[in-house]
Amino acid sequence: MTMSFVSVSPDSDFPIQNLPYGIFSTPSNLTHRIGVAIGDQILDLSVVKNLFDGPALRNQQSVFDETTLNAFMSLGRSAWKEARATLQKLLSADEPILRDNSSLRDRAFVPQNSAQMHLPAKIGDYTDFYSSKNHAFNVGCMFRGEDNALMPNWTHLPVGYHGRASSVVVSGTDIRRPNGQTRPDDTKPPVFTKCRLLDFELEMAFFTGPANKLGEPITMDNAEDHIFGMVLMNDWSARDIQKWEYVPLGPFLGKNFGTTISPWVVSMDALKPFTVPNMAQSPDPLPYLQHEEPYSYDINLEVKLKCEGLSQPHVLCRSNFKNMYWTMKQQLVHHTVTGCNTNPGDLLASGTISGKTPDSFGSMLELCWKGTKPIDLGGGLTRKFLQDSDEVIMSGWCENDGVRVGFGTCTGKVLPALDM
Amino acid sequence: MTMSFVSVSPDSDFPIQNLPYGIFSTPSNLTHRIGVAIGDQILDLSVVKNLFDGPALRNQQSVFDETTLNAFMSLGRSAWKEARATLQKLLSADEPILRDNSSLRDRAFVPQNSAQMHLPAKIGDYTDFYSSKNHAFNVGCMFRGEDNALMPNWTHLPVGYHGRASSVVVSGTDIRRPNGQTRPDDTKPPVFTKCRLLDFELEMAFFTGPANKLGEPITMDNAEDHIFGMVLMNDWSARDIQKWEYVPLGPFLGKNFGTTISPWVVSMDALKPFTVPNMAQSPDPLPYLQHEEPYSYDINLEVKLKCEGLSQPHVLCRSNFKNMYWTMKQQLVHHTVTGCNTNPGDLLASGTISGKTPDSFGSMLELCWKGTKPIDLGGGLTRKFLQDSDEVIMSGWCENDGVRVGFGTCTGKVLPALDM
Repeated sequence: MTMSFVSVSPDSDFPIQNLPYGIFSTPSNLTHRIGVAIGDQILDLSVVKNLFDGPALRNQQSVFDETTLNAFMSLGRSAWKEARATLQKLLSADEPILRDNSSLRDRAFVPQNSAQMHLPAKIGDYTDFYSSKNHAFNVGCMFRGEDNALMPNWTHLPVGYHGRASSVVVSGTDIRRPNGQTRPDDTKPPVFTKCRLLDFELEMAFFTGPANKLGEPITMDNAEDHIFGMVLMNDWSARDIQKWEYVPLGPFLGKNFGTTISPWVVSMDALKPFTVPNMAQSPDPLPYLQHEEPYSYDINLEVKLKCEGLSQPHVLCRSNFKNMYWTMKQQLVHHTVTGCNTNPGDLLASGTISGKTPDSFGSMLELCWKGTKPIDLGGGLTRKFLQDSDEVIMSGWCENDGVRVGFGTCTGKVLPALDM
Repeated sequence: MTMSFVSVSPDSDFPIQNLPYGIFSTPSNLTHRIGVAIGDQILDLSVVKNLFDGPALRNQQSVFDETTLNAFMSLGRSAWKEARATLQKLLSADEPILRDNSSLRDRAFVPQNSAQMHLPAKIGDYTDFYSSKNHAFNVGCMFRGEDNALMPNWTHLPVGYHGRASSVVVSGTDIRRPNGQTRPDDTKPPVFTKCRLLDFELEMAFFTGPANKLGEPITMDNAEDHIFGMVLMNDWSARDIQKWEYVPLGPFLGKNFGTTISPWVVSMDALKPFTVPNMAQSPDPLPYLQHEEPYSYDINLEVKLKCEGLSQPHVLCRSNFKNMYWTMKQQLVHHTVTGCNTNPGDLLASGTISGKTPDSFGSMLELCWKGTKPIDLGGGLTRKFLQDSDEVIMSGWCENDGVRVGFGTCTGKVLPALDM
């Protein structure tokens, strides 16, 4: 197994097999730079950019001087593969260039605990899908009953909606409980109130690569060339605001006060060893959505709640990305089949990823079954929805043959609502 | 009345009382520059930027060297007012600086017919509202019957949804008929087909100014400071795709293949003389949405269809912006009440603007009443929805006391669908 000269603890999310990309700054250098996580260190690519001397990157080294990943994302798969191969070589235990140059090492490595992470990309457009069948079924049961739980279109296309890009924030950003309009009693007029049913949604999302032009769909044949890598995502949701506003045009203010993503973008090549068969689809989707090659991933997901009065965070749920019914390729192909254009750094999210069993449900709404089953946190504490000062901590990792490829964490703490 | 030394024909949309901003380039200079329309000319602000020497702009002249309006939009109302005052002075018949300097005039003015217009701003996020009661009622009648036409939330809040920013294009851009999934027969599976029910929607939209931070709502007191100016908008819609996909998360592919805006952004100060009382609202909205000062505008709107076989474009409808039930201030305040952040250059659209009478309906869906009443174009031609090669031409203008402040046109031609 390839090893790095950088020491990597066995439980690290970031061995040499991972090498996710992120944007960081340090107290002594506030410029946002592109880094790669290795163990508990960050390799600053702006310092070593001249070492990317393969055919795809030698004339594109300036992408590693950018303050976001968009330019690197725009280069496409051959450049991404070359960058990964170059990084694996540079960081390997056998390669002296960095290993034996202490001056270069001192400039090129930054401890993760001294860095501030930022959004990995300037997100042009953000889309949220609804692609876990268990989640769609659970929510449908609660609101429409078991017989009408899934809408007729759900098994024919990956249902999704355009979300708010401006309020996507990086892990660690506090989230203020929103105020808004709700109608708690259908027999009375709506009221203006702080959100009472604040929720998280356990999701993952992928960043897009090279742009497609308006009017020119991405097809299944080349979908893979447009998928750069993945992050964890918390799609914070104000259930009471959402319920009152969302018919007929969909979620709007119930979601636009904040969406949190993890800072490290794990490449599709790093995830490849964890590929699993796609979920069986019935009925067969229309031909433009069909693909045989597996593009589903065995990614363990966990959500913990850290709150006052608990000595340690409580595990709220454990799920897995392989619970997705629609694949990322199907989502992207469907999204652009009308000719909709995408740009490097667009973010496409999975929707809440729930498993079949109650301990794998990816939102408070499902875990407490619409408020009917309070969640026992231990120590005499319970929760239906999130309270002020609660911190939601999501994590995700793949593991097999002794190799762990992880996503780090995606965290956010709830601030009290403004007094309006 | 103030006159310009630039000759302006009486039917021009762009007298000295208007002075809208746009982004243009010329065959001899492909750089995108900020221009102001006056008569049939464009004043190139990059050439005269040093003449903006008032207190708000003298240290900000570089905003007029930008390739989009975002930086200028970010400066806020005092800068916008000062820029307008400076421009009205520079262009007035009494002011010699430009009038008597033929060399400067030669560099500063470009005929509109030799310029290529571009999107006025880099649009971060685009939101579409649904704020014409007549339109919401018409569509509701068709799909749910008269008794359930308006959803319970409609009179309590400005219903809206996040749209696709990447596919907003400038007037004159051809729009390709989308392919997609539809279900023409509810007893059979869905099919993949080119859109058969392609429609326009007559809308207007406004650009936002200075950013508000995430978690800090824009309130009614300062909403006006965040509204830069307005454009015409065609929200192209694939009705058959929309119908099958939109429950429960709202419009997605039915709208994301293209949205056209007019190139000239008319400032709120130019529109001020055409202010009219707000539409009466019943029930009273919640306090956060209340405002007494009028913020509605008497803007005449017209849609023409140019198609093969007609000697001249056929007027499809005449409407007016004053048909809006919710004001732009209410839309913006509602949008951000949860703490959602906006950035300079975000685009917020009205929704289809329909009047009460059938000749004022702002979409083919309403004009042909869901296909039941073909529209007579004359010359033996009819239409229910748009056909390939049809060109939709929207125009808008205010007029009183002999002053006309117009928006120019917002046009787009339908290209045939790709063969997929």
